[in-house]
Amino acid sequence: MKIAFIGMGTMGAAMALNLLKAGFDVTVHNRTREREIPLEKDGANRAATPAEAAAKAEIVITCVSDTPDVERVVMGSEGVVHGASPGTLIIDMSTISPEATRVMAAALAKQHLKMIDAPVSGGSEGAKEGTLAIMVGGSKEDVAAAMPVLEAMGKNITHVGPNGAGQTTKAINQILIAATYLGVAEGVSLGVKAGLDMEKVITAVGGGAAGSWVLAHRSGNMITNQYPLGFRVRHHFKDLRIALDLARNLGVTLPVAALAEQIEAGLIGQGHGDEDVSALARAIRNLSSIS
Amino acid sequence: MKIAFIGMGTMGAAMALNLLKAGFDVTVHNRTREREIPLEKDGANRAATPAEAAAKAEIVITCVSDTPDVERVVMGSEGVVHGASPGTLIIDMSTISPEATRVMAAALAKQHLKMIDAPVSGGSEGAKEGTLAIMVGGSKEDVAAAMPVLEAMGKNITHVGPNGAGQTTKAINQILIAATYLGVAEGVSLGVKAGLDMEKVITAVGGGAAGSWVLAHRSGNMITNQYPLGFRVRHHFKDLRIALDLARNLGVTLPVAALAEQIEAGLIGQGHGDEDVSALARAIRNLSSIS
Repeated sequence: MKIAFIGMGTMGAAMALNLLKAGFDVTVHNRTREREIPLEKDGANRAATPAEAAAKAEIVITCVSDTPDVERVVMGSEGVVHGASPGTLIIDMSTISPEATRVMAAALAKQHLKMIDAPVSGGSEGAKEGTLAIMVGGSKEDVAAAMPVLEAMGKNITHVGPNGAGQTTKAINQILIAATYLGVAEGVSLGVKAGLDMEKVITAVGGGAAGSWVLAHRSGNMITNQYPLGFRVRHHFKDLRIALDLARNLGVTLPVAALAEQIEAGLIGQGHGDEDVSALARAIRNLSSIS
Repeated sequence: MKIAFIGMGTMGAAMALNLLKAGFDVTVHNRTREREIPLEKDGANRAATPAEAAAKAEIVITCVSDTPDVERVVMGSEGVVHGASPGTLIIDMSTISPEATRVMAAALAKQHLKMIDAPVSGGSEGAKEGTLAIMVGGSKEDVAAAMPVLEAMGKNITHVGPNGAGQTTKAINQILIAATYLGVAEGVSLGVKAGLDMEKVITAVGGGAAGSWVLAHRSGNMITNQYPLGFRVRHHFKDLRIALDLARNLGVTLPVAALAEQIEAGLIGQGHGDEDVSALARAIRNLSSIS
């Protein structure tokens, strides 16, 4: 099967490589074109524009930064719509606005193009190892058609609902992450300041109602006040903006997510945007009298 | 071994029963004395005051509501100190101030009485089944002496550090709970309002960085907007006050815990204090346009 893959960032490049390894015929495109070269060495074709990449493909995957980027590579003057044959399926694996996703899917349907949203979680490690969680929104038929391709990139693949449902689920994922990281940051900060042996504390509380992935896997960063990647603060910040915009439009109040977004704005301003999200503990420590 | 158990609340009565089942000679006391009667039927002795209960015991356990209650039953005019023989070990299993715990332990040491703090988590179910997590602060020797008794009531027993460390760990536990419940409340509220199939959403996000005990075990309450016990809002509220007081004294900033405490104040005022802590989602739903 011929696949076009647009967006050779850290995530996209690793995901496209897994498609090549699975035996798909992959054509790649990236705005900064030299990023296509490593994939070419691994057997991919290159295309000068999203339209050109799409012309050769049955399935087009987009994995770019934000809503305007997806709109540009899909709908723009050199976008997928200007190259794709009727019936082509577009799988958007970026994290973008659920509302914009629904609008785009409807516009594409009028041009006899299919679209599903399939944002991921699991970070660059999950992308490399092909173990991403993939949250999928779209019609039953389109999701079924995409499944062999998605299975080459991820493990926990859930068809959540219609167009946009994948993006809304990703927004929920980022809200949960915001609160859990911030809560663990507060708990660890108190324990560190109180002089407790935090490994023992985590053993004591981790098995019960206070337990979380973050407590098990990221409290160590917060204890040592070192935040190697991981998942970048600036990416979570961008995703929280999408979640907060959605919440505003729906009339839902998200006080903790909003607090996390504000704290992350400060972290980014201080030059910590490329640290792991566990750097929320850096902010709590800086607010507190913790040396 | 002779044990005095002071405080026959839901937790204390269940814990004392497990001591009886384990073959300990137990004398119980409760301010409202008729609460002692069920335990008497199960084989416990009764005592009219904490002092009288302590007179017969090698180990005295206190499991009462709050800091002033522990101070009263231990140090008050009819308190443990007026009955206990030198060398008696007091195990306080209430959730109270770590600072007051340290002061009390020091005062008791001058009277040749030993004390450890051993607050629990796991709720009334854990108390009944003897599966409580127990967070222990005190000297190595005193904790070792208490261990056979604690093992009759709990499973995950961790000696965290010196006097007060158990209570500080419990405070951290309640901070983690505050943020995780509130975050899941926000995520679920957004998903419900967006019309998603929330069971699918939880499957999609629960295995990754957004995963938590609360998401796995309490999101169901939040989806149906029904909050059966569980762990009472009013008890978590009281415990958060202890955590926030400690944080103030240490100079640590806990914005999410403080927000949860404020929201819980409103829930209690609205008559929801005896619902499960997952009722934080009731508050988020009430703030939002969710019917």
